Amino acid sequence: MIHAAASRAKGVVRRTPLLSSPFLDEIAGRRIFVKAECLQHTGSFKFRGAWSALSGMAANERAKGVLAFSSGNHAQGVALAAKMHKVPAVIIMPSDAPRQKIDNTRALGAEVVLYDRAGEDRNALGENLQKQRGLVLVKPFDNAFVIAGQGTTGLEIAKQANLQGIEKAQVLVPCGGGGLTAGIALALNENAPEMTVRPCEPVGFDDTIRSLKSGAIEENAQKSGSICDAIITPSPGKMTFPIMRSLCQPGVAVRESECLKTMQHAFARLKIVVEPGAAVALATALFHSDTLPEGDIIAVVSGGNVDAEMFQRALDISI
Amino acid sequence: MIHAAASRAKGVVRRTPLLSSPFLDEIAGRRIFVKAECLQHTGSFKFRGAWSALSGMAANERAKGVLAFSSGNHAQGVALAAKMHKVPAVIIMPSDAPRQKIDNTRALGAEVVLYDRAGEDRNALGENLQKQRGLVLVKPFDNAFVIAGQGTTGLEIAKQANLQGIEKAQVLVPCGGGGLTAGIALALNENAPEMTVRPCEPVGFDDTIRSLKSGAIEENAQKSGSICDAIITPSPGKMTFPIMRSLCQPGVAVRESECLKTMQHAFARLKIVVEPGAAVALATALFHSDTLPEGDIIAVVSGGNVDAEMFQRALDISI
Repeated sequence: MIHAAASRAKGVVRRTPLLSSPFLDEIAGRRIFVKAECLQHTGSFKFRGAWSALSGMAANERAKGVLAFSSGNHAQGVALAAKMHKVPAVIIMPSDAPRQKIDNTRALGAEVVLYDRAGEDRNALGENLQKQRGLVLVKPFDNAFVIAGQGTTGLEIAKQANLQGIEKAQVLVPCGGGGLTAGIALALNENAPEMTVRPCEPVGFDDTIRSLKSGAIEENAQKSGSICDAIITPSPGKMTFPIMRSLCQPGVAVRESECLKTMQHAFARLKIVVEPGAAVALATALFHSDTLPEGDIIAVVSGGNVDAEMFQRALDISI
Repeated sequence: MIHAAASRAKGVVRRTPLLSSPFLDEIAGRRIFVKAECLQHTGSFKFRGAWSALSGMAANERAKGVLAFSSGNHAQGVALAAKMHKVPAVIIMPSDAPRQKIDNTRALGAEVVLYDRAGEDRNALGENLQKQRGLVLVKPFDNAFVIAGQGTTGLEIAKQANLQGIEKAQVLVPCGGGGLTAGIALALNENAPEMTVRPCEPVGFDDTIRSLKSGAIEENAQKSGSICDAIITPSPGKMTFPIMRSLCQPGVAVRESECLKTMQHAFARLKIVVEPGAAVALATALFHSDTLPEGDIIAVVSGGNVDAEMFQRALDISI
């Protein structure tokens, strides 16, 4: 399915570069490579999964229009994929999602329905919309086409690592519901089996790390209130968790302040814009590499959809 | 020479992506593609030319060590290329160059000699150093190997444009001494002759635009005092000007405020960090496309070495 997703993605999904800097290597005391998915269309890897899902649907199904729940990145991915397929998209977003993400989703032609993350039941909202309008739900991670789409990131990593002479590496992936982590783990398991995939999460929102430890799906106590809005999904998915459980090594949790510092390093050294949640893997590489087996690190930077205020906060932090 | 430079660059110089955003297309009313050379090693295209020059030297020549004049980007390119070749580098930089550029050049292992841009004669300084230490001068643009290295950007543009179905385009290039503009013009003249190359400069530092108009090398009245520090070279080069004169179409000058706005657009829409001088071509695409023949635009973003303060100024400007 990942190879099929890659061939449907040809000429549409962007092949993002694998970046590096001697200054980052120096901080970590080893080579760090950064898969810059912030440079993907819509500013995050989510376009891969959305494109895979929409291009993988039967045309008559897709024509009904699509529905998605998202704090912002999946929203934009689905909105653009729907626009390119010329079908309608309705996106249910939490009202505390970053302004830029809400605005962009609308600007990409989608209808945005806002809900209160703490008080309202987004599932009930979604079911009503599905019934009323006959829309097809595109889940953000528990959907095989979406996981396959995110997995195309892993195919690129395998090829790019090979070209750069990287054989073994710790592959660190920002983890929300686990679609990207599971997809990359599947792709590398076949194409670069010497790579070790680990999910990275913010402290306090480490549901996947704890789930991998306990062997069962765990949930975060806190449901909101992190600057890492893109990846604070309450628990790993029913479909993604078994994949991660069988293919991933233990994950690492990082502090919000480390994410902000990482954003500043990425600005100064890689010239890319990283959003807080997307910085957790590179933050792990920069500040927690002592907890990892030695050797090269490949850190996925999963998105760059950040407001100017938050970015300026990252530039102001002392590093 | 460009093809030879490209083959010496294989596996060393980064193939930077051609980015785009529907939001930028909307501003310009046409398709814009951005060649993101800020993602090159050392944060600017200058590494291409420096690598080409050093890798093209005889080993015994190179072993003497290299000398360069630079406001910062050529400095870092030469410093890294020298470091990778394990030869010493001495860089003469103006004392008003951005702090980050001076610091990075030193951190890349080069010896930095500062001079006063308004009062001191950098050429005399350089000649002394050459004589005293037997260093080999690597000129920033009037050097065929350097022009050939910058030209590899053009080879990539030709290939990437072809893959994206772009046949004809206005190719806009930030122009200081003209090494990048001349190199790209040469590469496209052979590999994508339907493309039109135009130099872009800041208002008040439009020496190349005026030189192309008059047919003779013109000089800027003002020698410093622009936020576009990377490209305020006083005049086009003796070697680059005849190339540009024979292959380029008239250039466009943009205001500093337009550069800052462009930096903000690139932050929000492309997730890349652009320095003021490197923004002139994309600024032309966004704000002056009415002065250009219709059709697609390819704008080169030539670097991203900008201090946090200047970047925050760009994020604060109203767009």
